[in-house]
Amino acid sequence: MLRVVTYLSFSLLFLQSSLTVRAQSKALVFQSDFSLKDGAVSAMKGVAYGVSSTLDIFDLTHEIPPYNIWGASYRLHQTVTYWPAGTVFVSIVDPGVGSERKSVVLKTKSGHFIVTPDNGTLTLVAETLGIEAVREIDESKNRRKGSEQSYTFHGRDVYAYTGARLAAGIINFEGVGPLLPAKVEMIPYQKAIYNDGVISGNIPILDTQYGNVWTNIDKGTFDRLGVHTGDVLLITIQNNGKTIFSGTVPYVNTFSAVPVGENLGYLNSLLNFSLGVNQENFSEKYKVFSGPSWSITIKKK
Amino acid sequence: MLRVVTYLSFSLLFLQSSLTVRAQSKALVFQSDFSLKDGAVSAMKGVAYGVSSTLDIFDLTHEIPPYNIWGASYRLHQTVTYWPAGTVFVSIVDPGVGSERKSVVLKTKSGHFIVTPDNGTLTLVAETLGIEAVREIDESKNRRKGSEQSYTFHGRDVYAYTGARLAAGIINFEGVGPLLPAKVEMIPYQKAIYNDGVISGNIPILDTQYGNVWTNIDKGTFDRLGVHTGDVLLITIQNNGKTIFSGTVPYVNTFSAVPVGENLGYLNSLLNFSLGVNQENFSEKYKVFSGPSWSITIKKK
Amino acid sequence: MLRVVTYLSFSLLFLQSSLTVRAQSKALVFQSDFSLKDGAVSAMKGVAYGVSSTLDIFDLTHEIPPYNIWGASYRLHQTVTYWPAGTVFVSIVDPGVGSERKSVVLKTKSGHFIVTPDNGTLTLVAETLGIEAVREIDESKNRRKGSEQSYTFHGRDVYAYTGARLAAGIINFEGVGPLLPAKVEMIPYQKAIYNDGVISGNIPILDTQYGNVWTNIDKGTFDRLGVHTGDVLLITIQNNGKTIFSGTVPYVNTFSAVPVGENLGYLNSLLNFSLGVNQENFSEKYKVFSGPSWSITIKKK
Repeated sequence: MLRVVTYLSFSLLFLQSSLTVRAQSKALVFQSDFSLKDGAVSAMKGVAYGVSSTLDIFDLTHEIPPYNIWGASYRLHQTVTYWPAGTVFVSIVDPGVGSERKSVVLKTKSGHFIVTPDNGTLTLVAETLGIEAVREIDESKNRRKGSEQSYTFHGRDVYAYTGARLAAGIINFEGVGPLLPAKVEMIPYQKAIYNDGVISGNIPILDTQYGNVWTNIDKGTFDRLGVHTGDVLLITIQNNGKTIFSGTVPYVNTFSAVPVGENLGYLNSLLNFSLGVNQENFSEKYKVFSGPSWSITIKKK
Repeated sequence: MLRVVTYLSFSLLFLQSSLTVRAQSKALVFQSDFSLKDGAVSAMKGVAYGVSSTLDIFDLTHEIPPYNIWGASYRLHQTVTYWPAGTVFVSIVDPGVGSERKSVVLKTKSGHFIVTPDNGTLTLVAETLGIEAVREIDESKNRRKGSEQSYTFHGRDVYAYTGARLAAGIINFEGVGPLLPAKVEMIPYQKAIYNDGVISGNIPILDTQYGNVWTNIDKGTFDRLGVHTGDVLLITIQNNGKTIFSGTVPYVNTFSAVPVGENLGYLNSLLNFSLGVNQENFSEKYKVFSGPSWSITIKKK
Repeated sequence: MLRVVTYLSFSLLFLQSSLTVRAQSKALVFQSDFSLKDGAVSAMKGVAYGVSSTLDIFDLTHEIPPYNIWGASYRLHQTVTYWPAGTVFVSIVDPGVGSERKSVVLKTKSGHFIVTPDNGTLTLVAETLGIEAVREIDESKNRRKGSEQSYTFHGRDVYAYTGARLAAGIINFEGVGPLLPAKVEMIPYQKAIYNDGVISGNIPILDTQYGNVWTNIDKGTFDRLGVHTGDVLLITIQNNGKTIFSGTVPYVNTFSAVPVGENLGYLNSLLNFSLGVNQENFSEKYKVFSGPSWSITIKKK
């Protein structure tokens, strides 16, 4: 009987080991400017699945406008914290592929990992979530076998491969490569500030699908205006110092608080001040777009 | 040895418990009008994955035209029954977010669950699959912790969260919230009817990718015309009572039964009567679109 | 105690059996020209998930241009080998649905399976990976129950269903249906050849998202020119014999090796010779597109 029990123990160890490996696996979330039109995203996922078939593989978006590092930074900022700590993100917007930018993994203070070229992509998550540590990917260990001749698809051969190994627990964070100084490449942009009854800020991104205009003015800063729902706000929007929009909007909790076709101001799902038109497209209607050159001021009427 | 066996039994119970939890998990399928351009869909999936990493998470589509509740209803109708009973769908087309529409979960008679604002989205599945029961989401229990300040993203904070809990078996259907009367908001539309050799019906949707025109005329109704493949049909299509298309088409089983560029009538994959042009776009060619205002009549030539 | 151990053994067998089933599951990867706008892709995945909830289900792309069999062939060629051997691909670009093309499963010499109508889709993987065997799908066994009345959605009822059964280990390759001769339908196209200092080739596809022009000239053929990075190449591109582009480009390893807006030649991630403009769109700029009618010649300046 001892033999039987020993066999059982051995089997249990084997089973537990399998289950443990599975339990260690984390979500692997891909972002890029590749679109889903060709095979590039699928090739990255195939490489990751080949590393470990126990991974849970997801997408953030692959429709970052081509080469738009700022857009990549914003989408990470918008999304990362809704995933559990330990989730590994692979973000590939890499106009400088092959140049001297470093390939890194950022561990945020929130416990999320982001595998990316260090080209500004990490700007907003570094500011918002904090830098726990940054490591440079050691390509002598963390590069898909047989890929050494390829110069141009680091997303597949280095980033997807490294992210999959990290998410599957094949390497830990230390296994990524050497520690770098705890900083990343930052894209400069206008911060949100309150001064004497006026808030200034930036329009980092549009709510693309609906044409709403999102600012970087958070609820804490916005609340300093002492505004309540139903109050009217004076809004000025400039691009490179030229006024593009000037007008008033009511501050409301829901789009349906105003008639169809009317402007409104609200806090979006990230609790940032935003502008919309009920069932229309604010951006197209007023030719307001987003990026570092766009600024906004808000005051109470 | 008893101690060893006890340990083994305990381990087995633990293992079985893990496997049981996994076995209870069901598919969670998301639909929205968010597109995949920004981080909204990924944030919903992150919340769901945070609820349970054992979920199998899929998409129906995120390209419902913005605010198009009818489109959301049709895509559910087109797809739900191809998924196993027990699958949980989360559908977010919610122009009235923040207004008085109820947040509900419909259990169909086929055993599928649909988590959605009750704004008409359930029209076609309620008719086709039948209403087993409707429950209102109790947000005091089924709302993501820390999301109480956000007014505008119920899809992430309430619907994705509730759908994930239901699919993972953390709550059962009763745990959603209080039972409502067994009815849902219905969008009126023209039913398919046969009368004296003529069938009238509606064009609920286009086969967008190819431009085929799909009607709500099912095989049972269509068969009352007594038509066989090769027979010729007289078709009239109106929008708000104005004739847009009038002509004849052969009734065929396959597109390749007619030359490239010629019109045809066929039963689509839902076994509804449809119109196409072999390797061309019927909708664009004849400016025929879809919605409640579009009607069609068919008779045998 | 024997009873306890027997119970434990039985439980272990049950557990091992569950784990074995899971371990046998393989990735199932879908490709089509359906787009993600409607419910067709989701219906296919629902059918697959209904076959086995242990499958790992992925997408290659669903944005093959409608009816473009050559595009389907190229995307498989671009992607298949990045997935582990044993992966099952389901590719549905099927303008001849319902006509006499055969429904087949190709097993490549690399151990990948491709479930598809045999209409040319297999051209490039058959050439590149080699044909291990081809089997015709026996629809009397491998067709979704209750789907016999539907003429037009073989993707869901036959291909997705068969692919899921094969990937889940419910059938093995022999279970697909009878063996066919080891050949598939081939689309003719210009091969890459070196002759007396000049390479001729074809432009099979564009790198759609960025507008780069990809040729079928592999590194081995390209190296016969004796070119090193920094050397200048003379390029001529013709469509149906008419010259569309004629000019010089430097051969470089990375886009950033030339100023923004300048042309370059490089080896893409498949190690094929390609043309681009740093941070611009070569295809749009010079009206160069892809397909069997497009040819290119390269020589050293």
